Amino acid sequence: MEPRNASASLTIMTEIVLPNDTNTFGNLMGGRLMYWMDIAAALAAQKHCNAPVVTASVDNISFENPIKLGNVVHIEAKVTRAFTSSMEVHMRVWGEDLIQQFRYKSNEAYYTFVALDPHRKPRPVPAVIAENEEEIKLFEGALRRRQLRLILGGKMKPNDASELRALFTED
Amino acid sequence: MEPRNASASLTIMTEIVLPNDTNTFGNLMGGRLMYWMDIAAALAAQKHCNAPVVTASVDNISFENPIKLGNVVHIEAKVTRAFTSSMEVHMRVWGEDLIQQFRYKSNEAYYTFVALDPHRKPRPVPAVIAENEEEIKLFEGALRRRQLRLILGGKMKPNDASELRALFTED
Amino acid sequence: MEPRNASASLTIMTEIVLPNDTNTFGNLMGGRLMYWMDIAAALAAQKHCNAPVVTASVDNISFENPIKLGNVVHIEAKVTRAFTSSMEVHMRVWGEDLIQQFRYKSNEAYYTFVALDPHRKPRPVPAVIAENEEEIKLFEGALRRRQLRLILGGKMKPNDASELRALFTED
Amino acid sequence: MEPRNASASLTIMTEIVLPNDTNTFGNLMGGRLMYWMDIAAALAAQKHCNAPVVTASVDNISFENPIKLGNVVHIEAKVTRAFTSSMEVHMRVWGEDLIQQFRYKSNEAYYTFVALDPHRKPRPVPAVIAENEEEIKLFEGALRRRQLRLILGGKMKPNDASELRALFTED
Amino acid sequence: MEPRNASASLTIMTEIVLPNDTNTFGNLMGGRLMYWMDIAAALAAQKHCNAPVVTASVDNISFENPIKLGNVVHIEAKVTRAFTSSMEVHMRVWGEDLIQQFRYKSNEAYYTFVALDPHRKPRPVPAVIAENEEEIKLFEGALRRRQLRLILGGKMKPNDASELRALFTED
Amino acid sequence: MEPRNASASLTIMTEIVLPNDTNTFGNLMGGRLMYWMDIAAALAAQKHCNAPVVTASVDNISFENPIKLGNVVHIEAKVTRAFTSSMEVHMRVWGEDLIQQFRYKSNEAYYTFVALDPHRKPRPVPAVIAENEEEIKLFEGALRRRQLRLILGGKMKPNDASELRALFTED
Repeated sequence: MEPRNASASLTIMTEIVLPNDTNTFGNLMGGRLMYWMDIAAALAAQKHCNAPVVTASVDNISFENPIKLGNVVHIEAKVTRAFTSSMEVHMRVWGEDLIQQFRYKSNEAYYTFVALDPHRKPRPVPAVIAENEEEIKLFEGALRRRQLRLILGGKMKPNDASELRALFTED
Repeated sequence: MEPRNASASLTIMTEIVLPNDTNTFGNLMGGRLMYWMDIAAALAAQKHCNAPVVTASVDNISFENPIKLGNVVHIEAKVTRAFTSSMEVHMRVWGEDLIQQFRYKSNEAYYTFVALDPHRKPRPVPAVIAENEEEIKLFEGALRRRQLRLILGGKMKPNDASELRALFTED
Repeated sequence: MEPRNASASLTIMTEIVLPNDTNTFGNLMGGRLMYWMDIAAALAAQKHCNAPVVTASVDNISFENPIKLGNVVHIEAKVTRAFTSSMEVHMRVWGEDLIQQFRYKSNEAYYTFVALDPHRKPRPVPAVIAENEEEIKLFEGALRRRQLRLILGGKMKPNDASELRALFTED
Repeated sequence: MEPRNASASLTIMTEIVLPNDTNTFGNLMGGRLMYWMDIAAALAAQKHCNAPVVTASVDNISFENPIKLGNVVHIEAKVTRAFTSSMEVHMRVWGEDLIQQFRYKSNEAYYTFVALDPHRKPRPVPAVIAENEEEIKLFEGALRRRQLRLILGGKMKPNDASELRALFTED
Repeated sequence: MEPRNASASLTIMTEIVLPNDTNTFGNLMGGRLMYWMDIAAALAAQKHCNAPVVTASVDNISFENPIKLGNVVHIEAKVTRAFTSSMEVHMRVWGEDLIQQFRYKSNEAYYTFVALDPHRKPRPVPAVIAENEEEIKLFEGALRRRQLRLILGGKMKPNDASELRALFTED
Repeated sequence: MEPRNASASLTIMTEIVLPNDTNTFGNLMGGRLMYWMDIAAALAAQKHCNAPVVTASVDNISFENPIKLGNVVHIEAKVTRAFTSSMEVHMRVWGEDLIQQFRYKSNEAYYTFVALDPHRKPRPVPAVIAENEEEIKLFEGALRRRQLRLILGGKMKPNDASELRALFTED
């Protein structure tokens, strides 16, 4: 199975915030945004592995600025690294007011997907080739984030998370 | 401002998985589930503080079992702890096949909300009273999860996260 | 087939009124509410009989108070009585303004469902055990409501509706 | 206020059953159909009174035949009679398989609407002129159905429902 | 295959403009309207040929007046002419403010559909009988519009479009 | 008002075909696609003029290949030319099966938008600078397409459409 460039999985999604997507402040509801992000990230993962995928986990997300009714939502999703049959996808999400020509960050997030074979069992996926500086940084951080996911999911003990542990024990 | 019982914020949401909520395997899409969870959790937070709220962050979520087309989605949301103007909400999510009388866990999650005043500025919220063993455990863990959120959001240094650090440094 | 407690079928649904659910007054449209009620009641019926069900009929509904945009809709559904292969489900529906801490009744309603076997033919369902005073009152009234349904559906003559007739002929 | 012909309020709605409108049998959900009926009937009532209206009540509905995925839903709504500020609307609902050239009845129903003035208070509506035999029959039956609604809503005693009572007491 | 009257395919669709159908001006979005028109026209084509159909093309549409939030959308669709396995459908679309008793034109349009057999191959459809003056005019113009479609789709050379060419070359 | 590059308006939209977007063949309905295209094109137009826009017209569209359930829809929209207060937007639309790594053309289309000032009157928009060969070809063809739109909308006589007329009269 040939490794593939991270950049080949880039998926760009553009949506507009309609009334039913908003809370009583006229801002995009967090849940609606996570729905769009799930689709954008799943497409990036499928582009990478050419197999159906399912959402395995979602990392911590902090919403920095509300996206307003009528504004545009931009989502850029790209695979960062593969682990046997799973892929981590990184997303940048920002809002844009096209009238005022103003762009603002909403959040940055990581979703993880598992590729499935026709029997709905996990199947191997190609490795990811990180080419530029940013992709390399995302590729390297993926190990640490994976350890955190395993600890938070109760599948790894904190003491075994060497990558993550270093953050807390170095002087 | 009078503290309030965690139990007073309990919100129960029941949904059915319809065709448009599913991926090509006929399973509920993760993003659609996060949308429902956002609404259930926001209602629990609003019940606690009687003010409008916005989603501030979402903690790591691991999806354990897919929820199938036609199955029922159960979400139970309850406030665990308040921090000045923010509230952490804990959710249990499970699927149910009513025909087969089979219930299965989907995930457990934490969303954080901020209460807003009429000028859309954060406003104080009542403290949470944890009454039973489970509520006390959730209340106590809230501090550690908050430190993790702050570190992951770049607003705290790992070395300052005393609660969290203990996990990695104890022998 | 073992009879089952009415309480075992209790289904709680919580929804929020979004812009697209409202009429030009910003109030929940009656039809949208009946849609949610249909799902909540169908789930209660399925919980009772563990078989797929279809809506057979809907009794008179009076809408008492409009539910406002951004308010919460609460639906509680419970089976009242079974008749061979059909089940009557009772619902209480109310709205709630979480900011103002104000709850108000929307309506009370009865929907009837038929359980189907894999050939889509009606199949028998368990009897209902009414345990408390309210459940007993709902159980007993079910016969009279059924006669009314049959008369209104042209399947029974008024003179044969002994239960119902008593209401009009007693001094 | 000039009386108006019933026929002037005729509203014809045509919808197609899409996947998300169906239950696990691939048949239109009752609640989705009641949603469309509510809109069709509200339009007929608005045509009659040229004022905004709200759904006041829904009479008993019996669903006779399921409408299938991909089939067409036909709804014809027409005002039958006005009572001060309320209007009863009669609907015929049928399904159609355009490929097989097969039409089948779904149900016949009555919804009642109240007209509102700009202060959201009930306002008078024009009387209805029934012209043909069917309209006259619907106009006359409206009184009996209204008494039934009032009794079922707890606003009239059975003994005072002279029109309705006659059905049960004649030899 | 018996020819059929154009009038037998008449399809009337009535919709109401809800918040999520509107742009930031509170007017119906053009794309949402084209969605409804596609369904109305497909139903008219299916009524004519009693076979499943797919949208083959859409002719130029000019939107003349915006349709407002809460207003009614009326669509009347009727087959104008058949060409082997395709059918042209003509639509009139207008908006209506029921409170102000004001009707206004939105647009007039032509969509073309192809009938498919069970192998998803084009299948022949009945000829159309135009009966009144308007239907005859639409029937005759269909040939010219078809030439324009073929030229614009790159399937005919302008010089071969005799019907259309006459428009540009006559003195 | 400074002219702007066509490329600055490029808008990329990616959608996935869900069950409710499909007809009985499991293919994306034409109307649903036109809805997405309308949003993508409106965003491109707004990017160009930084003002709200409304859909003025849609040119002939031929659908070449059906897009299947679960496949991806790609839409790329870019402004081609401006005429006082209107802008023509060109779109390429294709489907993609990510599993089979197969891309196929759906259609190519032109939508026209008008920019509005706060009084909802047309307002001037910047001119478009076509930079590469394709943009220049689209820019030049825009005049001919505009004449065709005016003729089809009854606002120009065929004899006055010099650009278009040349196509039919040259030997």
